[in-house]
Amino acid sequence: MSPPAPLDVDLVAVTDTTAVPVPDPLTVNGISAWRAKTAKMPTGVAAACSSDMFKSPICYTKPKAKRFDHRFSLEAKSRKPSTLKTAARYLKNPGLISLGGGLPSPEYFPFEHLDIKVPTPPGFSPEATRESGTVLRAGKHDIQDGSSTFGLIYIADLEIALNYGQATGAAQLLRFITEHTELIHKPPYSDWQCTMTAGSTYAWDTTLRLLCERGDYIIMEEYTFASAAETAFPLGLKAVGIAMDEQGLLPESMDDILSNWDEKARGARKPFVLYTIPTGQNPTGATQSAERRRAVYKIAQKHDVIIVEDEPYYFLQMQPYVGEDAEPVPPPATHEDFIKSLTPSFLSMDVDGRVVRLESFSKVVSPGTRVGWIVASEQIIERFIRNFETSSQNPSGISQIALFKLLDEHWGHSGYLDWLINLRMSYTARRDSLVHACEKHLPREIAHWVAPAAGMFHWIEIDWHKHPGIAAGKTHAQIEEEIFLSAVEAGVLLSRGSWFKPDHDTIEEKMFFRATFAAASSEKIDEAISRFAGSLRSQFGL
Amino acid sequence: MSPPAPLDVDLVAVTDTTAVPVPDPLTVNGISAWRAKTAKMPTGVAAACSSDMFKSPICYTKPKAKRFDHRFSLEAKSRKPSTLKTAARYLKNPGLISLGGGLPSPEYFPFEHLDIKVPTPPGFSPEATRESGTVLRAGKHDIQDGSSTFGLIYIADLEIALNYGQATGAAQLLRFITEHTELIHKPPYSDWQCTMTAGSTYAWDTTLRLLCERGDYIIMEEYTFASAAETAFPLGLKAVGIAMDEQGLLPESMDDILSNWDEKARGARKPFVLYTIPTGQNPTGATQSAERRRAVYKIAQKHDVIIVEDEPYYFLQMQPYVGEDAEPVPPPATHEDFIKSLTPSFLSMDVDGRVVRLESFSKVVSPGTRVGWIVASEQIIERFIRNFETSSQNPSGISQIALFKLLDEHWGHSGYLDWLINLRMSYTARRDSLVHACEKHLPREIAHWVAPAAGMFHWIEIDWHKHPGIAAGKTHAQIEEEIFLSAVEAGVLLSRGSWFKPDHDTIEEKMFFRATFAAASSEKIDEAISRFAGSLRSQFGL
Repeated sequence: MSPPAPLDVDLVAVTDTTAVPVPDPLTVNGISAWRAKTAKMPTGVAAACSSDMFKSPICYTKPKAKRFDHRFSLEAKSRKPSTLKTAARYLKNPGLISLGGGLPSPEYFPFEHLDIKVPTPPGFSPEATRESGTVLRAGKHDIQDGSSTFGLIYIADLEIALNYGQATGAAQLLRFITEHTELIHKPPYSDWQCTMTAGSTYAWDTTLRLLCERGDYIIMEEYTFASAAETAFPLGLKAVGIAMDEQGLLPESMDDILSNWDEKARGARKPFVLYTIPTGQNPTGATQSAERRRAVYKIAQKHDVIIVEDEPYYFLQMQPYVGEDAEPVPPPATHEDFIKSLTPSFLSMDVDGRVVRLESFSKVVSPGTRVGWIVASEQIIERFIRNFETSSQNPSGISQIALFKLLDEHWGHSGYLDWLINLRMSYTARRDSLVHACEKHLPREIAHWVAPAAGMFHWIEIDWHKHPGIAAGKTHAQIEEEIFLSAVEAGVLLSRGSWFKPDHDTIEEKMFFRATFAAASSEKIDEAISRFAGSLRSQFGL
Repeated sequence: MSPPAPLDVDLVAVTDTTAVPVPDPLTVNGISAWRAKTAKMPTGVAAACSSDMFKSPICYTKPKAKRFDHRFSLEAKSRKPSTLKTAARYLKNPGLISLGGGLPSPEYFPFEHLDIKVPTPPGFSPEATRESGTVLRAGKHDIQDGSSTFGLIYIADLEIALNYGQATGAAQLLRFITEHTELIHKPPYSDWQCTMTAGSTYAWDTTLRLLCERGDYIIMEEYTFASAAETAFPLGLKAVGIAMDEQGLLPESMDDILSNWDEKARGARKPFVLYTIPTGQNPTGATQSAERRRAVYKIAQKHDVIIVEDEPYYFLQMQPYVGEDAEPVPPPATHEDFIKSLTPSFLSMDVDGRVVRLESFSKVVSPGTRVGWIVASEQIIERFIRNFETSSQNPSGISQIALFKLLDEHWGHSGYLDWLINLRMSYTARRDSLVHACEKHLPREIAHWVAPAAGMFHWIEIDWHKHPGIAAGKTHAQIEEEIFLSAVEAGVLLSRGSWFKPDHDTIEEKMFFRATFAAASSEKIDEAISRFAGSLRSQFGL
């Protein structure tokens, strides 16, 4: 454990743009021209960087984010820049020999090169990749050797990836992430920033420590990702659950709870952190429409709430569900069509800078990279960076260079969007298999569902009041357990709805089971749902 | 963000061993025989594992660790096993189809294989690696394809490495780490465990949250790694500094402070967490002798202190310093000699299970892996795992498989020890360059040092009372700053001793500068020290 070279972010100077015409929005095709105009990519070990080095001029025509000083925890407010950082300014002195930092020499990194074999667009399938994939190489000294020996220009190599890095992650991948964020979300304020994270779970843990104090409540959907709630509880936090419909959380319910918050009765101040999974919600599969998000955002403004949008499933938005016999909807014809087809994020409507967007490569590239990122206002991101500097430091450099080689050097934004469209079509087929199986097998007298528009999960409501156990005085928990165990007995494992209920002060009125279509084959899915149907029929005496 | 398959550690059954002869200690050469007797390596996605699967029989002949329930923080005590974990037990049912977990399908991981080119022992130099290094390949489905198609047995592949993992890290690398720990440290209690971490900085942050409450003091060396103190401060912790000599922290000073702790005057309970860097301490370069460690351990027992030993420099223990003209000491002839040459760790004398050992690959393989590990008692490790499950989850799977391929599959323990011996000789040469340069250039009237026995750092004391600024009434801080800036002016960057002082309640009596020999070449080191000497002479009018 040794200090990385400190972060010393030089913000790009923002000139007064009121007199000049508004610049064009960034487009996929416009990126290479814009890159040519920006400053050279920093290629030193643990080089400082920030999204401001990569955002296009249109960003700076927008107003700045509001300040959220009053929302930071005591822990967050106490964080100071690293002491060892103070020495970094001298590193720019020409000819200076540094005996200051504790970075090991790359001559002792036992990796000479790293190769990855990856898909060559449009051949995204495993078969195509095996046959015609591309091998990408990261050498130890590519930056130095490339330009000196081969006249090639490299901006990343193992010498850098294997050493200490900045909390933001390396500039090379941060540029891709920043551009991607601008292309997709076009945040409506100027001083947004990205920082990489050691995965979204960790980002959420850090977010709670940044904003909350022991004893606080946080706002969650009535049903939510169980682990997200379990990240919060040991910190002494409680959850208040917001009612949902098939579009997810209900803004009126949130307004109602916050407007009538009784500090004395609750023993806690009015909550101001909303954790939401707006797209393909886990576990309900619900996706908030644009209109719904705008309504939620308004309530957040009214009560000065910070919205934490956890969006691992954003690019698992699928084609509309059309039923088994209907003609499938053709895939988006262009990248622009694809981007337009996506439900706008909270980030895209965040005029105040009150959204903390948690991004993840887990569902679109792979969970094992343990690389995610956060988008939020500069003020908030700065506090995250101060935290990461003395905790995770930075995501794995090996993961970062593998992602950089794949996403930036090989695919580029265009290839990555092609990959995401391909993923969309694959998940559509998987979702369809599961919904078809439900239509085919499940007893409609007691089972109800809506085909999910995004994500990995299908949420099946069971009309438990029709269960014979009711007459015997059995509770919700008992009947849910019986149905669950009977399904296991029949050879299918689903998740119980009650596992996902974070608010322990309220009673569950409905009963749900969650099924995922992410992993099993369509044959197995059909068989699994058929087994579940059988167990339901026997449970309910149908 | 989605739940990894839950941890469900099946501890190896420990039979009563009192009647049977004591098993032999584990040796490098005995490992393959022992492996052949243990259970099959689990190769499922996010397969549960623990060090108990890999420890040799002698471990179980030892008494169990003490319990430390009274030392856990409220946060640590509040952690519960994951709700979604409860479903895992059913995954063992034969024929069960799981629609339960949210793991993505490997068919969407866009990596077909990963190759790394690494040194072939004994050719460890970068030149030898380029010429005769070995290329190691991890394919996507090696486990399945290897055994089915080629009759080869693989225990790791990308299908697993790229998916979600357990908080402990994957069994494959955990086995190597566990065996390495047993070979080197032979912990004297039975129920020790290892868990991987997303780097030692993160492990330290987590340790503080596991043991301390806001308002507590922690015990640190008088001078310590600045970032370690800065990890603690925002959590509302203060540091009490223990006096040091050239062997590091003084047990009498620690005993004195703890015996006379005045809760009222300090406004805090008596501290019980010691953070120490026993080997090649940062910044002082001091290494505690075995005797010193035993004395410190006794004081820790007396006051029921938990010792957190942060040991990134353990394998940077060097050959004895013999001066420029003396015959160099030959390297250890055998692995056994090498292991014996190492100063015993606190872990190796930890009869109570009160040591939390933070381990790192940063200084011996590379910092960019962001993989470290912790060794501690089962009770303590279990609390770490509960924390990691809802925060970092697991270190990067790509880093893990690269380390596994290199350390286990290719080098094995024998090759890794050769690598560490090679590193020892390299750091010895670097240390010698710096000490020689000091002997050659620095004015002995005002500069004093001891050749470090381990680590990356050289600690130079400057007799600041001889500085002409004293007559002008200048303070310690002012004179330190003048010397520092004068060196920068002369073209050399060192670190100021005051940066490393965590205890803000005491006054600094001496003055130090820290120089590292880790990164610069021997020519540059000589030039840098020559510049520093010049700036000192002009500062002190010599």
